[in-house]
Amino acid sequence: MVDAYMRAALDEARLGLAEGGIPIGSVLVIDGQIVGRGHNRRVQRHSTILHAEMDALENAGRRRASDYRRAMLSSTLSPCSMCSGAALLYRIPRIVIGENTTFRGPEDYVRSQGVDVSLTADDEAAAACVEVMRRFIAAHPALWNEDIGE
Amino acid sequence: MVDAYMRAALDEARLGLAEGGIPIGSVLVIDGQIVGRGHNRRVQRHSTILHAEMDALENAGRRRASDYRRAMLSSTLSPCSMCSGAALLYRIPRIVIGENTTFRGPEDYVRSQGVDVSLTADDEAAAACVEVMRRFIAAHPALWNEDIGE
Repeated sequence: MVDAYMRAALDEARLGLAEGGIPIGSVLVIDGQIVGRGHNRRVQRHSTILHAEMDALENAGRRRASDYRRAMLSSTLSPCSMCSGAALLYRIPRIVIGENTTFRGPEDYVRSQGVDVSLTADDEAAAACVEVMRRFIAAHPALWNEDIGE
Repeated sequence: MVDAYMRAALDEARLGLAEGGIPIGSVLVIDGQIVGRGHNRRVQRHSTILHAEMDALENAGRRRASDYRRAMLSSTLSPCSMCSGAALLYRIPRIVIGENTTFRGPEDYVRSQGVDVSLTADDEAAAACVEVMRRFIAAHPALWNEDIGE
């Protein structure tokens, strides 16, 4: 089943890769519309906080609390503690993940806070999310470790 | 007892207030030196992610994992889920808080992850942290609610 939001997140990941960055992408969706697109910008902006989800949230601009309450965050990779925390701050009720095999954030804690966290049903997109990360991590292990604080 | 780091964080909060922003400040300290100073920039940069702690982390630049492991984050206000998550991502072992009466983040969860979370021992600075937030919240309740996703 095609997950158009995950594919948009994957497009962001690939855009990041083409820029020489870490290939993780994310989109923020409200009422079926993508309102913010983002990708990891550690390399591009020399940033320690612009993970894909943070970039998508920032690019979505300042929104009403009621907007976040019906939003969904789609990410190619399982969100880390920082990005999970951002979703909790704004009480985003749903997170869809491309893959959580190359990295897994605190999904159980996020679920315990009432968030619906699930893997995409788009198997083709999921496989592409894993593939892009596996290749990147193999080629740039130090950069990847830096991004997850290891 | 004077907590020079908390006073530096308070200076950041006041700088933010002077800019028309939300008066929350933070500093990142490594080996006794302040390596990043930050304050909330929601208003100034129209940002949804530049809370004080995020701004301090960003301003500290890209650091080695081993640097974060001996860092301390000092904040005028109890860190929210996002900022707490950022501290967990980088495994910052110690967080010192100016006050947690006007707002309280997930301190117990952060402690459960092994972080030493404590209130400053500088009573004068703590009182100033509360005072600046109380006045701000009373004057700008909508802006404050936006900042904490309410």
